[in-house]
Amino acid sequence: MRTRPLKVALLGCGVVGSEVARIMTTHADDLAARIGAPVELAGVAVRRPSRVREGIDPALVTTDATALVKRGDIDVVVEVIGGIEPARGLIVTAFEHGASVVSANKALLAQDGAALHAAAEANGTDLYYEAAVAGAIPLIRPLRESLAGDKVNRVLGIVNGTTNFILDKMDSTGAGYQEALDEATALGYAEADPTADVEGFDAAAKAAILAGISFHTRVRLDDVYREGMTEVTAADFAAAKRIGCTIKLLAICERAADGGSVTARVHPAMIPLSHPLASVRGAYNAVFVESDAAGQLMFYGPGAGGSPTASAVLGDLVAVCRNRLNGATGPGESAYAALPVSPMGDVVTRYHISLDVADKPGVLAQVATVFAEHGVSIDTVRQQGKDGEASLVVVTHRASDASLSGTVEALRKLDTVRGVASIMRVEGE
Amino acid sequence: MRTRPLKVALLGCGVVGSEVARIMTTHADDLAARIGAPVELAGVAVRRPSRVREGIDPALVTTDATALVKRGDIDVVVEVIGGIEPARGLIVTAFEHGASVVSANKALLAQDGAALHAAAEANGTDLYYEAAVAGAIPLIRPLRESLAGDKVNRVLGIVNGTTNFILDKMDSTGAGYQEALDEATALGYAEADPTADVEGFDAAAKAAILAGISFHTRVRLDDVYREGMTEVTAADFAAAKRIGCTIKLLAICERAADGGSVTARVHPAMIPLSHPLASVRGAYNAVFVESDAAGQLMFYGPGAGGSPTASAVLGDLVAVCRNRLNGATGPGESAYAALPVSPMGDVVTRYHISLDVADKPGVLAQVATVFAEHGVSIDTVRQQGKDGEASLVVVTHRASDASLSGTVEALRKLDTVRGVASIMRVEGE
Repeated sequence: MRTRPLKVALLGCGVVGSEVARIMTTHADDLAARIGAPVELAGVAVRRPSRVREGIDPALVTTDATALVKRGDIDVVVEVIGGIEPARGLIVTAFEHGASVVSANKALLAQDGAALHAAAEANGTDLYYEAAVAGAIPLIRPLRESLAGDKVNRVLGIVNGTTNFILDKMDSTGAGYQEALDEATALGYAEADPTADVEGFDAAAKAAILAGISFHTRVRLDDVYREGMTEVTAADFAAAKRIGCTIKLLAICERAADGGSVTARVHPAMIPLSHPLASVRGAYNAVFVESDAAGQLMFYGPGAGGSPTASAVLGDLVAVCRNRLNGATGPGESAYAALPVSPMGDVVTRYHISLDVADKPGVLAQVATVFAEHGVSIDTVRQQGKDGEASLVVVTHRASDASLSGTVEALRKLDTVRGVASIMRVEGE
Repeated sequence: MRTRPLKVALLGCGVVGSEVARIMTTHADDLAARIGAPVELAGVAVRRPSRVREGIDPALVTTDATALVKRGDIDVVVEVIGGIEPARGLIVTAFEHGASVVSANKALLAQDGAALHAAAEANGTDLYYEAAVAGAIPLIRPLRESLAGDKVNRVLGIVNGTTNFILDKMDSTGAGYQEALDEATALGYAEADPTADVEGFDAAAKAAILAGISFHTRVRLDDVYREGMTEVTAADFAAAKRIGCTIKLLAICERAADGGSVTARVHPAMIPLSHPLASVRGAYNAVFVESDAAGQLMFYGPGAGGSPTASAVLGDLVAVCRNRLNGATGPGESAYAALPVSPMGDVVTRYHISLDVADKPGVLAQVATVFAEHGVSIDTVRQQGKDGEASLVVVTHRASDASLSGTVEALRKLDTVRGVASIMRVEGE
């Protein structure tokens, strides 16, 4: 074994960073044996140096992250700051000074992955980011490497633990959205401002990363269609149960049937209770992958938290260190397929639509005509009525999102349709 | 991209081999883009060259596998023959002639993994074998690489599709073992001679491989305790249901609580219906991993079949080819921890025991005394009796397998115990 240690600079020392530092210390011998050389924490850049950081030598702590990554003797920079800047600038500077980078930064990777990969490659260094998607769950490496000889057609994932906790709570207790969110906040599963989670921004960043890797195509955050889950109601869950489904916030990356384009989207959807994703409880994450040869795979585990995220970061750290000892780099960006990313209107799926309608003869015929005119085929219809009020619940066969939107627009114009109570996609069949 | 192709020799062209050859042809451009150089099928060694092999140039087919691996211009040998010899000799010869090897051979890896790894290392070549465990499911790479910075404490897996199909059938239909086996055979899930599957030999080989990688320790097939599932009855399933469980054939690799030793075993066990492994249906495989930092992970997918296994082989092929282009090798054997492998008697778990007893007062007291004398603490007891016949169903707290064996031996000597109807371990809690 080499005795001269590899030097690691840690940018950020919050929940994840402090756990990375802790494990680097407590498991130093294991890491050295697995890498083939010892690793040494050479510096820790933080914003508030006065905070006590147990187990970290105060002499290593600095507020000057730029100087740290510019030192020139750093082998690997671990970036767990999050956000776009200063993370982006620091990562690029690290590459320019010969360091490889392990990052957990989904927002940055989703927005600027291509540029960062290019910077890594230009400097002969590595960019690894297993921790950016689904925390501890090995997902980036299986997609980039294990399935490198296969053709991925679809990725269907629960990639945000906060929203899965809320939806699971609504499902199991009949609670409304606000009540379930309040509980998630009280238990620390939701942040004080839950927007990034409940509006699907976090999941959309992960969808962009997953789609890019799965389809060997650049997919940016802006390419991802996004709907949050704040408008999911207890009534939606009751409706889902009636058709043997539950509701999950899904990140869905798909190759079009003709293989010529891809789509990426995040929205709440009904999925059958028999689908493996339906039984993913609490704040757990799971990602279901469909490929030509492997068939259906699922990866399940904790999607967030200090220790799980640190596990993913350290796995990458070991890989990047091994690469450096080998004088090699791991797989870089693979975007050779360069498939066009289609808009949401091109997505083909099924829909569950609840309409409030007048309780009189002929309404169903009228509604059915509108569906037919827009080329949306109806699978089942259920009518419920009393006291002049009635509802129609329609589940469609597969149709394009554009056709469905046209259908709904036309339905709203019917005198007999008093309102469209809810529209939800049905996935996983 | 390099234009000179990497040359691949295929040993075996059955269900898996022919699928590997097919995908290498149909997806040649994708593989070239992902590797950075084209790959060329340079030779295919088979036993019966007269069989028509669609899509394979007859000029590539040979019966002389040894000459093929000795050619000297082969970059990667893909071994999908199975069994110990001639596979072992061919793999070693391949290493000696500078080729890296991708193998799907669980029996060989479980028996001679250390020697094969040593031969690969001595020649500066790679040995990859993702396909040897759980078919298409990325498992070896996540354990070797993604979790390289973590400490795996337990692996609990359904790693044999045939037996899971049979047990799932028994669970869902109430069928007996023979009836379910007959259906598995008729549907092609079980071989004409199902011994390797139903007696747990196949799962034991996989357990040895998983334990070795997880604990950085050499674990050989002989180190794995093994019980088949041919004696599982419909009555066992009924008993399992009464305590909220189902029955699976599990491969279990555990680090002892003190961290100083490991165990590996294969046997049928009751697991709670709430456990993610309980809902793994049909011939699917799934492996549940518990580690210090990542927590609980699960990997799920098809555990066998030509296409899924080919997906795993091709993923390895891409990785090995990239390594060659980099002039590097991937992670080799990691056995630095060298922990002792403890015998089955040291395993600590829970037990479900059904006793046929005399229906008279004092029997429970007698039985409970025997458990207490052997240090096995009882969790629950259920008595059922009529017409002078009675049964006692005992579920224990955690105890060592040796203590449980001693308890059962003593119970058999009691006059009031007419027989021990069944003993089954309870896992996954």
